Amino acid sequence: MTTTTVLKLGGSVLTDKSAPETVDDGALDDAVGAVAEALAGDGDGADAPRLVLVHGGGSFGHHHAARHGVSDTDGTRDAEAAFAVHDAMRRLNDAVVTRLHEAGVDALPVHPLSAATRDSEARLSLPLGPTATMLEEGFVPVVQADMVAQAGSGTTVLSGDELVTTLARGLDADRVGLCSTVPGVLDADDAVISEITAFEEVSDVLGGSDATDVTGGMAAKVRALLDLGAPAHVFGPDALADFLAGEDAGTVIRG
Amino acid sequence: MTTTTVLKLGGSVLTDKSAPETVDDGALDDAVGAVAEALAGDGDGADAPRLVLVHGGGSFGHHHAARHGVSDTDGTRDAEAAFAVHDAMRRLNDAVVTRLHEAGVDALPVHPLSAATRDSEARLSLPLGPTATMLEEGFVPVVQADMVAQAGSGTTVLSGDELVTTLARGLDADRVGLCSTVPGVLDADDAVISEITAFEEVSDVLGGSDATDVTGGMAAKVRALLDLGAPAHVFGPDALADFLAGEDAGTVIRG
Repeated sequence: MTTTTVLKLGGSVLTDKSAPETVDDGALDDAVGAVAEALAGDGDGADAPRLVLVHGGGSFGHHHAARHGVSDTDGTRDAEAAFAVHDAMRRLNDAVVTRLHEAGVDALPVHPLSAATRDSEARLSLPLGPTATMLEEGFVPVVQADMVAQAGSGTTVLSGDELVTTLARGLDADRVGLCSTVPGVLDADDAVISEITAFEEVSDVLGGSDATDVTGGMAAKVRALLDLGAPAHVFGPDALADFLAGEDAGTVIRG
Repeated sequence: MTTTTVLKLGGSVLTDKSAPETVDDGALDDAVGAVAEALAGDGDGADAPRLVLVHGGGSFGHHHAARHGVSDTDGTRDAEAAFAVHDAMRRLNDAVVTRLHEAGVDALPVHPLSAATRDSEARLSLPLGPTATMLEEGFVPVVQADMVAQAGSGTTVLSGDELVTTLARGLDADRVGLCSTVPGVLDADDAVISEITAFEEVSDVLGGSDATDVTGGMAAKVRALLDLGAPAHVFGPDALADFLAGEDAGTVIRG
């Protein structure tokens, strides 16, 4: 049976966060190579997974978002500001899509600004017809973090993490992967926790919902992934090939 | 009451069709100027119409579509070919959006490849949440002709004309405008027909559905516009300001 996998390549993996709009060419090549190899399968493509790629903004999106003071909660009605953020994330998307083409992967871009919307309660609506049809037709949709129109707020930021959970649910994904610069969810000794099945197992080390989230949003991320209904793997770039080969990688989160 | 207008700026108006990927700067400036003036209204924006802009491919899309042999019926599964057409149309879209920003119009891009899909019978589905939310938030969506994923065919071309009728129906538009290089629907003496209320009135001059459509698709265009449920105006660039001011322009088609 063909499985559906949603894989997020973190902006921090693909870009040099210390310099605005700088692709980390070596890291992008490595990630693209792993994806191309996994999709080639045994050569006839029959056992290749259906794959949806999501990427964050990294040094492309964050730079412009900070300059214009926009986030997933602070919106803007300044179309030039919204376009500047969208356009920067699109340049990263173009780099990913083009590199995938060069590696023989039939990638197509998906820009959520054109496809998604939020209501006045910030609930996201992302119709999945285009992504699902791309998958059925043998393409690899490459979905970028983006700006999105929101009722009452103009436009707000739509993060890669929110896209991953929305796509995984909507496409009934079998597996979810989050590839970032950390090798997994870390315990108090900075060792990778191999499996998480309930938030209580890690609340001491990640902090509860009331505590300051000092781990860069890991607590919120783990909570969201526990709710998914599909196993989610949090891992670093070194484990990407293993994940794509169907093996366990980094921390496995099974809610 | 705020009215909703869907306006197509033909690719032939915005580009120099004789040269690949060449914007007709003077024509684009004129069109953008007319739009900016109409949206400024009496200054407080209260009487400004909600406006959705659509544009064709002109010398951007057609060049690449022809090179890769794709049309609204002939699809491709070659992601690089689909991306080449999409990307070219997007460069034109960028030019239009950027020029609108310079004129003070809060334009945001909409790329149908990310938003629309066709089923195996070629029926288009274009969820209108993003466009509607952009309008409610005071933005001007600028929708490009594009490629679109189609079940069973990979990707096919989605024309500006099909976008206009789909958007006009879905957004319950009050007025529709098609600005091309001809001043309207022409009679046998090349005079502009002022009004069409039934296809029989013009079948002799446009050709019936069985005849070769020598007028560049005008017969099919008129049939589609007669079905709309909103008055549609077919006019040339000189009449754009009149149309946007709410006046009759070129040929008015009322089904």
